[in-house]
Amino acid sequence: MNLENYIRDIQDFPKPGIGFKDITPLLSNPEATSACLELLASTLADKNINKVIGVESRGFFFGILLAQKLNAGFVPVRKPKKLPFETISASYELEYGTDTLEMHIDAIQKGDKVLIHDDVLATGGTAKAVCELVEQLGGEIVQMNFLMELSFLNGREKLGNKEIFAALTY
Amino acid sequence: MNLENYIRDIQDFPKPGIGFKDITPLLSNPEATSACLELLASTLADKNINKVIGVESRGFFFGILLAQKLNAGFVPVRKPKKLPFETISASYELEYGTDTLEMHIDAIQKGDKVLIHDDVLATGGTAKAVCELVEQLGGEIVQMNFLMELSFLNGREKLGNKEIFAALTY
Repeated sequence: MNLENYIRDIQDFPKPGIGFKDITPLLSNPEATSACLELLASTLADKNINKVIGVESRGFFFGILLAQKLNAGFVPVRKPKKLPFETISASYELEYGTDTLEMHIDAIQKGDKVLIHDDVLATGGTAKAVCELVEQLGGEIVQMNFLMELSFLNGREKLGNKEIFAALTY
Repeated sequence: MNLENYIRDIQDFPKPGIGFKDITPLLSNPEATSACLELLASTLADKNINKVIGVESRGFFFGILLAQKLNAGFVPVRKPKKLPFETISASYELEYGTDTLEMHIDAIQKGDKVLIHDDVLATGGTAKAVCELVEQLGGEIVQMNFLMELSFLNGREKLGNKEIFAALTY
């Protein structure tokens, strides 16, 4: 199964000049979703991951599927003011200004073996901020796991020597 | 397993006077998440559901788990401007003002048997708007499925004679 057939290119979204990779055709096909989940999990056997982080919002889809597949807890990382309990936060730069992500302070325990999942690795700013959150709480990042990598944006360079896996690369 | 033990009460969130039901302890425990998924799916065997809708954002978690469990496609219903392809929309009243939800126009085909999942049935405004989206595209709503129902808000009254299932009732 060629998963790229289930990713739809949308021109000029969210703004003119940007090409957006729409994953809703993938999600709407249960066999393609299942095959994608298998691929995302293919390098994770025997790594004893006990927490999977999904990044709001599109990282929630395969994040929670991966967590259940690995029998690990699921942890949402969210935009500011969305999580109800006490949080820690990390900021990252956008083209203009900054953005912030939050995680509950009790979401990760020291020594947890953590998988970070998001839909897209682009410039790496979001992923780096999530690493900071995990490391603030003493978690060990086992792998950065993405549905797709936009390799021309060189996001890997921001992530140091972390293990990175992407199901699809553009 | 008593799932209520994995729901945390947060007072005064998102604003003073509101008691919020935090599901992150449930999500962080894989056995509790699995037990909750079994319960949510317990009335769905032999109903031939082929599409599961999850409502942004907390409806995404069990929405996609239910979709994979039922071998059905997953459809995200989202806040305005988040979905990249052509959309339909439905609005609902808030305490002050209105809010809008969107769904892709190709997300549901006529005759699809649809499960609508969200985390909470409160006043029923969101759920009713999602029903309108599904019915605009000719889908058949098999069940409205919720992690929890705040029964004192009488949301059921807005949903007519739709089948409603909630894993937890407060």
